[in-house]
Amino acid sequence: MPPTFRAIDVIRKKRDGVELSQAEIAALVNAYTEGSIPDYQVSAWLMAVVLKGMTRPETAALTDAMLHSGDVLDLSSLPRKKVDKHSTGGVGDKTSLVLAPLAAAAGVAVPMISGRGLGHTGGTLDKLEAIPGFNVNLPVAEFRRVLEICGCAMIGQTAEIAPADRKLYALRDVTGTVESPYLICASIMSKKLAEGIDALVLDVKTGSGAFMKSEKDAAFLAELMVETGERMGKRVVALITDMDQPLGNMIGNALEVVEVVEVLRGGGPEDLRELCLELAGWMLHLGGVSKTVAEGKQESAKLISSGKALEKFRQMVELQGGDARVVDDVKRLPQAQHSMQVASAKTGYLTAMQCEQIGTACVILGGGRGRKEDAVDPAVGIVLHKKVGDRVATRDAIATIHYNREAQAARARQLIEASCEVAEGTPPTKRPLIHRVIGKSGEKN
Amino acid sequence: MPPTFRAIDVIRKKRDGVELSQAEIAALVNAYTEGSIPDYQVSAWLMAVVLKGMTRPETAALTDAMLHSGDVLDLSSLPRKKVDKHSTGGVGDKTSLVLAPLAAAAGVAVPMISGRGLGHTGGTLDKLEAIPGFNVNLPVAEFRRVLEICGCAMIGQTAEIAPADRKLYALRDVTGTVESPYLICASIMSKKLAEGIDALVLDVKTGSGAFMKSEKDAAFLAELMVETGERMGKRVVALITDMDQPLGNMIGNALEVVEVVEVLRGGGPEDLRELCLELAGWMLHLGGVSKTVAEGKQESAKLISSGKALEKFRQMVELQGGDARVVDDVKRLPQAQHSMQVASAKTGYLTAMQCEQIGTACVILGGGRGRKEDAVDPAVGIVLHKKVGDRVATRDAIATIHYNREAQAARARQLIEASCEVAEGTPPTKRPLIHRVIGKSGEKN
Repeated sequence: MPPTFRAIDVIRKKRDGVELSQAEIAALVNAYTEGSIPDYQVSAWLMAVVLKGMTRPETAALTDAMLHSGDVLDLSSLPRKKVDKHSTGGVGDKTSLVLAPLAAAAGVAVPMISGRGLGHTGGTLDKLEAIPGFNVNLPVAEFRRVLEICGCAMIGQTAEIAPADRKLYALRDVTGTVESPYLICASIMSKKLAEGIDALVLDVKTGSGAFMKSEKDAAFLAELMVETGERMGKRVVALITDMDQPLGNMIGNALEVVEVVEVLRGGGPEDLRELCLELAGWMLHLGGVSKTVAEGKQESAKLISSGKALEKFRQMVELQGGDARVVDDVKRLPQAQHSMQVASAKTGYLTAMQCEQIGTACVILGGGRGRKEDAVDPAVGIVLHKKVGDRVATRDAIATIHYNREAQAARARQLIEASCEVAEGTPPTKRPLIHRVIGKSGEKN
Repeated sequence: MPPTFRAIDVIRKKRDGVELSQAEIAALVNAYTEGSIPDYQVSAWLMAVVLKGMTRPETAALTDAMLHSGDVLDLSSLPRKKVDKHSTGGVGDKTSLVLAPLAAAAGVAVPMISGRGLGHTGGTLDKLEAIPGFNVNLPVAEFRRVLEICGCAMIGQTAEIAPADRKLYALRDVTGTVESPYLICASIMSKKLAEGIDALVLDVKTGSGAFMKSEKDAAFLAELMVETGERMGKRVVALITDMDQPLGNMIGNALEVVEVVEVLRGGGPEDLRELCLELAGWMLHLGGVSKTVAEGKQESAKLISSGKALEKFRQMVELQGGDARVVDDVKRLPQAQHSMQVASAKTGYLTAMQCEQIGTACVILGGGRGRKEDAVDPAVGIVLHKKVGDRVATRDAIATIHYNREAQAARARQLIEASCEVAEGTPPTKRPLIHRVIGKSGEKN
């Protein structure tokens, strides 16, 4: 920290719209991480960032300072290109569980560090933990060992990785300073770049089930993350993808593992399968194992048909202590005690689903957390029988709720009923699955 | 506090530009004062206020909540109208010491609670304490007794008055959230209204020695304070007055008392005397003892010529434990050991003084504080021999520095030399002493 550093000066500058230097941002982040400046100064600064924004160099400097607040994995001894994928979060979004083994089977290394469910969205760690015995808390040495053997490994954030992000995120959560693309970008990118990756595919969700409801906001965040990653010497591409209804048919931790196995077996719902192939295509392309994205997609489809992707998944589950028999018999996954159907009250087309409400219904069932300290119930969830654009008749089952507590199921049912719109007339126009691709790396396709 | 109050909701609303209700603002202020919400949430909220502003009802609600966070003096048993004056702070601004006895002599009661020097500006309490024995820390009962006997009393803020302001001000000071007219307004008005006054004359300074350098900013703050006071049922008027050069000729605590005695004796520099009469005219008018401001000014001038204002000053000094003999013999005030002259290097007109620098020069001499815990030296200061518009010749004394430490004097001298501009040509146009009067109460004049 420069001897002349005073937090108050950095706060005032940001308040007055003056660009901060890399040294000033680094000094602030370092001083906060080591505890030498108080929360109340940093929260004032964070609010100034939310309301005044950041320049691209400032965003990169913040990302860099957070990244270097802790350990950065050095995976240079692994001969393969290290490629990861990150999603901004959605409902029924289980692509990570398909992509890690799929891309690993194709020859790239996937050192994936993921999060838990946040708000109405699910989290990769919660899904993995639905597999009996699966350990997401591997020490770094063990993570590296699994990665070397298997080509992919999936764990949670460790205390050593980006501690500044951990501390800043906790403060943002209670000071109304979560909603800033600059802060979101720095939070995501600092953690991802700490994985020691060469390239990153970002899946930025937009629609009623995403944090960025509008495509404009999603694209802004996507561009910010791509530019920040590129400034730091990584190949980064962002796909703006649809989250106006859940992805796939299953929502809930164990249920989503079931759907992952279906996709890895060559089945599964069309939208989930298509998005997995598209994202895998990009991972393979950026990881240098396929010349084009299209080639990468083809290669990925082959690895699914041949069963090699499924075998890779089985291997990873085994190496991380999980019960690999679930791959052959999904009934070994936790199952809810009861189920009930949600039926349509009308005949017509399913024209829209309030996707965030569907996610919230799953949280209410116990599939997510109301408070951070809550435990999740891996068995509960929702299976959709109809998606937007489908024809439904009165009393047709739109969804099945898998539950363990009656009262929760009743509330979830109400929410699902209220979030599905059925109308007569012409079928609704379907939104595309992939809205846009952002990033210079895309030009090479 | 409403049972549903959550600080995070109030922070988010302000961040998003949504108007807060009176209940929300009161809940936030009360929760903070009693310590049930942390500094880091309040500082984020303060930064959102700085950057998003406040509506007039919000500003009034904040003022009201801060006012009622502690005791509000009930002076209704005093038959006279209670009128106070507040200045936003300047250099050489000693009008309070003239006005309290002058207005009291005219028949209004002046329950004045003042502050210490802030930044480059002097503070009324520091000036009063230059009088040997003068006690500015009277308990409320004693304050009331002096007021009843004498018609005026001058003390510092007590722990019981507006504790929310005390806590908020300390937080604003370290989080870059001082500079907001809404927060400044609420801070000033909550303390002044806690005095139990009927009317208030605000002296809002503008120019190079003021906190509000531009007239536009000064007028905005003035309007805000006037409207806030009127919403709370008080008669309030604001005078935008000039602070582009020091007021009067003397700067420094004991020196300013000397000049106060001069004015009360019918002498003193023209600008100081004129501003005192103008402000006193308004105090008498708002306090109902004179029909017009002009009448109030005439009455005030008479009270000075007759010696009644000086006698009132002597009485107040005695009642507050001070050595009243200083009134007849100002040499009894603390005197610096040394003096040196600052001479002009050129011949011409004194065209400008960087007024903030002159104030800073006095702080450097020890007349103000670098840090809050510093003691002030009452004896040191600066006497100006020339003011803007005066003709000076090479080697003419522009000012005399009264000092106790050589090194400080050398630095002060440099600063004064650098802040005085002398140029040949036509004499500079003098800025008016009173720029504008703001407030509906003025229409009655």
